[in-house]
Amino acid sequence: MSSHSLAAALNPSSIAIVGASDNPNKVGGRPLMYLSKFGFKGRIYPINPARDRVQGVPSFPSLAALPEAPDLAIVATPGDSVMGAIEDCANRGVRAAIVMSSGYGETSDAESIAAEQKMVATARAAGMRLIGPNCQGLANFGTGAVASFSTMFIETTPADGPVGIISQSGMMSVVPYGLLRQRGIGVRHSHATGNEADVTLSEFALAVLHDPAVELLLLYIESLRNADVLAEAAALARERNVPIIAVKTGRTTRGQAAARSHTAALANDDRVVDAFFHRHGIWRVDDIHEQVNAAELYLKGWRPKNRTLVVVSNSGASCVMAADTAQGVGLELAALSDTTVKTLASHLPSFATAINPIDITAALLTDSTLFGRMLSVLAEQSDADQYLLALPVVGTGYDVPLFARDAATFMANTGKAVVLAAPQESVAAEFRATGVPVFSNQTDAMRALGQVARHATLMRAPIRHASSARTVEVPAGEAPFLDEAESLELLAAHGLPAVAHRVCRSTSEVAAAWRDLGGIVAIKACASAIPHKSEHQLVVLNVTTEERAVAAFNDLMQKLADLGVDGGVIVARMARGFEAMIGARIDPALGPVLLVGSGGKYVEVFHDVAVLMPPVTAGDVRDALLGLRIAPFFSGVRGEAPLDLDALCEAAVRLGDIIAGSAGQIASIDLNPVIVGAKGEGVVIVDALVERGQARLVTA
Amino acid sequence: MSSHSLAAALNPSSIAIVGASDNPNKVGGRPLMYLSKFGFKGRIYPINPARDRVQGVPSFPSLAALPEAPDLAIVATPGDSVMGAIEDCANRGVRAAIVMSSGYGETSDAESIAAEQKMVATARAAGMRLIGPNCQGLANFGTGAVASFSTMFIETTPADGPVGIISQSGMMSVVPYGLLRQRGIGVRHSHATGNEADVTLSEFALAVLHDPAVELLLLYIESLRNADVLAEAAALARERNVPIIAVKTGRTTRGQAAARSHTAALANDDRVVDAFFHRHGIWRVDDIHEQVNAAELYLKGWRPKNRTLVVVSNSGASCVMAADTAQGVGLELAALSDTTVKTLASHLPSFATAINPIDITAALLTDSTLFGRMLSVLAEQSDADQYLLALPVVGTGYDVPLFARDAATFMANTGKAVVLAAPQESVAAEFRATGVPVFSNQTDAMRALGQVARHATLMRAPIRHASSARTVEVPAGEAPFLDEAESLELLAAHGLPAVAHRVCRSTSEVAAAWRDLGGIVAIKACASAIPHKSEHQLVVLNVTTEERAVAAFNDLMQKLADLGVDGGVIVARMARGFEAMIGARIDPALGPVLLVGSGGKYVEVFHDVAVLMPPVTAGDVRDALLGLRIAPFFSGVRGEAPLDLDALCEAAVRLGDIIAGSAGQIASIDLNPVIVGAKGEGVVIVDALVERGQARLVTA
Repeated sequence: MSSHSLAAALNPSSIAIVGASDNPNKVGGRPLMYLSKFGFKGRIYPINPARDRVQGVPSFPSLAALPEAPDLAIVATPGDSVMGAIEDCANRGVRAAIVMSSGYGETSDAESIAAEQKMVATARAAGMRLIGPNCQGLANFGTGAVASFSTMFIETTPADGPVGIISQSGMMSVVPYGLLRQRGIGVRHSHATGNEADVTLSEFALAVLHDPAVELLLLYIESLRNADVLAEAAALARERNVPIIAVKTGRTTRGQAAARSHTAALANDDRVVDAFFHRHGIWRVDDIHEQVNAAELYLKGWRPKNRTLVVVSNSGASCVMAADTAQGVGLELAALSDTTVKTLASHLPSFATAINPIDITAALLTDSTLFGRMLSVLAEQSDADQYLLALPVVGTGYDVPLFARDAATFMANTGKAVVLAAPQESVAAEFRATGVPVFSNQTDAMRALGQVARHATLMRAPIRHASSARTVEVPAGEAPFLDEAESLELLAAHGLPAVAHRVCRSTSEVAAAWRDLGGIVAIKACASAIPHKSEHQLVVLNVTTEERAVAAFNDLMQKLADLGVDGGVIVARMARGFEAMIGARIDPALGPVLLVGSGGKYVEVFHDVAVLMPPVTAGDVRDALLGLRIAPFFSGVRGEAPLDLDALCEAAVRLGDIIAGSAGQIASIDLNPVIVGAKGEGVVIVDALVERGQARLVTA
Repeated sequence: MSSHSLAAALNPSSIAIVGASDNPNKVGGRPLMYLSKFGFKGRIYPINPARDRVQGVPSFPSLAALPEAPDLAIVATPGDSVMGAIEDCANRGVRAAIVMSSGYGETSDAESIAAEQKMVATARAAGMRLIGPNCQGLANFGTGAVASFSTMFIETTPADGPVGIISQSGMMSVVPYGLLRQRGIGVRHSHATGNEADVTLSEFALAVLHDPAVELLLLYIESLRNADVLAEAAALARERNVPIIAVKTGRTTRGQAAARSHTAALANDDRVVDAFFHRHGIWRVDDIHEQVNAAELYLKGWRPKNRTLVVVSNSGASCVMAADTAQGVGLELAALSDTTVKTLASHLPSFATAINPIDITAALLTDSTLFGRMLSVLAEQSDADQYLLALPVVGTGYDVPLFARDAATFMANTGKAVVLAAPQESVAAEFRATGVPVFSNQTDAMRALGQVARHATLMRAPIRHASSARTVEVPAGEAPFLDEAESLELLAAHGLPAVAHRVCRSTSEVAAAWRDLGGIVAIKACASAIPHKSEHQLVVLNVTTEERAVAAFNDLMQKLADLGVDGGVIVARMARGFEAMIGARIDPALGPVLLVGSGGKYVEVFHDVAVLMPPVTAGDVRDALLGLRIAPFFSGVRGEAPLDLDALCEAAVRLGDIIAGSAGQIASIDLNPVIVGAKGEGVVIVDALVERGQARLVTA
């Protein structure tokens, strides 16, 4: 599985087309047509036993007859001859083969799925990479290696450029291509990965990011595979300052179901996907239009350092709407200094507004230099990194070319992110010609500014590689869960603050525990066979007398006996305070996951929980918690004391280290509730449940 | 204030232009140019003492010299002559005058504001309506009465049509006009209301809705005035089946601040605005592009009865993204019957997907009739009201004109809402030509479908006129607030379940109250001077002994004495259960408002409160509560009993009736918490605070 052989697929020096057709509108004919049309400089080998030339190119009867082993082979033969063609490729020493035919792993048919597995086995045995099946193909407009049957490259003329597109859907490898080309942006790579029986999107991402021409990478993902490789690609992208914008479908259960029927995509937990992208500096969007919306801004090299925005418009209404929109797109209106406001105002009529958003008003009609004068003042005096110029209506009487020149000058002199919102195409064209990014829709313009600003922050965050600094030892056993005492012990061993408790198996032990723990305790059954005690009424809270403690013990032991379960009882000190939760688990696709948020019954009701990818710092956890709806509780609600947020963060960091270092021994850990005391008082884990991972689960 | 005189402004038979200019690019010249250009059939009277003809039209030296009193006068003179012109208009019997000049109420200058007030006084004294000042003008393309100086009607050729636009911003009266014209949709009315010193947007809305040609009304609002008139207009719109789509700015505090500097707009409470629009069937959007996004669908007359969606595409990825998007836009994927799925599948290859969303796959390339065959099956067998056709890429080899004809046939035969999502302009053009609404962006297409479906539901809700069925009597007084005992008494008098309580002024009364109320009570100071007792530590909860009750009484009475406040103590039975809140108040712009949601300290933290406009039904309250995040509590969380939702709804209805019937006697009522018992156990108001309205506030 070398990236070497994949590089051969992306930048081949020779390409064979198995099933090459003279008809350029057939699957076996179109790649051949494209290779000629887009000036592929390498050797082209049409394979067709029935002809001497195909589309004018000398052809060969078989792969065996070729003068060399081709880097890339396109398999465009009918379904029943595909397997033979793959065997031929493998035998001839082809380095990578694209299989375009459909009807394999994407179906629910066992025979078709088996056929796909056989393809992969054949390829791997020969050290050949397999792309697809069910794959539209690859296109590299830097080299003309366009091994694709998409019609899009007929409709929309290619131009080499700084964008790479990799997609698990054939169509979504070319829809963003079309939208970018409409905006005059060139595309270097447009690759579809098909069923990913062998090569995955993650591998393509890594390979494409090694192309120094790529300055922006777009991904369309239905199912995340090889997350570790994508993480490696994302780290490379950040080192190279290349933004990655991903559509990841399956946000909803209906979307996941649809994805399964499309490419047999495995469902990913959507919140974990978000956390993964966040950790790796990948910006997630919901659709292809959003995916290209900010492309021009990224390609200008804009990586803003702050999120403040200045709006300049000839429309008060545009100003008002911009002010409303700012917060939702992650921007804030810059507070201009009094000096700046005064300077701006000195140019404007009294009924205009010189505070940000700056409303020049219809005074612009009388004096077209006002626009540039506003920008000159801002260039000298504003610290904001984002500028929205909004000209919803300008026409007869306005010097629009002057406005465009003034904006371009401002953009060049400041290096700041500047966009124009103008629904009139005549206005847009003037600005576009000067290089200022233009949006018809002001909200889209602001979304683009906000995205680039927020994404730049994400990209600047330090790259953290998964570590396993902590060595975790979990007792092996047959039960899927540790009992509560074992769970608390494991946590305490790693410095997590477990509630003071005793495991008791006799009334005298219970009585002693009640006394020693301070006279107000909770008494709970402790048995690995019953991980969810509440559901079996095996928890007694607020036990305030020795007599009641003993009675509770007897009752619980009887219930355990009735259930036929071996176990004891835990007596634990009652703790009161804010109920938080911390959880951790291994996601099957994305690895260790940490959850932190509202606990107790509110966990379920409000879903007010943040998801992070460990290892995390206390700062990461703090940021996540302060983004939740419960955030106000941490600083104290209605005169209550602020909570010990530091202690909660520290506990979460430790739990993250435990799951990250558990090496398959732990499947999940659930701490709920974690009682958070007032600032300085710490946290206490009141209930804990550790689930064994495969590595520690001894099957009876 | 007759709508008669406003009708004269919208449909005048004669128009005078005071300050008429020979230069069509001047404010005084452009309306004259437009009246000629757009074929105004009435009499045109340019007023210009210096000329005989203006732009070729015979002119008059003064209004006094006119042969008749004109219906409408445009005042386009320089600032210092405006007041004289208005006096002339008033004296000549003009029915409505548009003042275009700026620099009046929109400034913060006292003299300018006073000048505007004088204009209004002059007009009103003469029975003349005043439009503006700071007003771009009115445009009626049905009659050619285009009394506007916007440049937009030069840039973008008008066509009469079914849309009315009314805007508090000049620019936002023409931006949607431009976007609609780009889509080939005709616009009848495009009116800007300027500063609304006299005539408001609400009045314009009512007047325009009397035009039978208007089938869709767009509003741009910065500040809601005459809400009762807008409510009347909205009722007329629903009777006429005319959808109203409103941009209402000032959603955020920054937006409100910007609006104040734009048109001195008063801030509205944004959640109350939402409730007002909801009550009156007005659909709110955030920007002008959203405002026109679904226009074509509305104008087809589509008023869907259900929200189910069927997706047909040649792209699995489009299907997956549609499935993800559906929920967010208020649609759900239709569950097609087994028979339908089988029938669909019989036309498709095995690797295609016949369940909804329906993925025809690239098989469409081989057989272009597949698209129409899918639609024929759906026409016969599907009950869904919404259809998204998604063709992200079709080109060489696809019979796109056939697809367009098949879609148009389906649309005509079913009468259902059908839209195409296609980013390729070549594809869009084919469909557009057959009348199928086309969107480049699939998400926009789905938003339009979802909006029309949800808005149709809103428009079908019964029209409820404000009533004051309940007669409320509030004791008059000097204190802004009733004390708690008075508050509870008022509520109980209207059938609201106040907690069992006693007002006590002696230790013996307290001891008796403690006994009678069951031995667990809350003891609170009761004094109208201290409406917020908790802030002064004047509440003692969970008093379980007579001794403690007496001690609490003594403590509270001492504290009152220390505060120099006259008052007693309330002893109230403790109630436990879910904490809800119900509130009511009079919004200065929009009238009676009812709030209901999460109570206790969660009110502030989660802002989980719904806002309604009384009178409401129990069903309204229930729908609102079930839309909140606390909704799961009503059906019982983690095995807890379901709550008495019916009782909570009934209490909210009664409070709504009280505020609606209070005729200025009450400013606000705050019931927090309201303890909600298990189903059948009712609710109990534990804390109540009634604020006197102006009508009951006796100033000392």
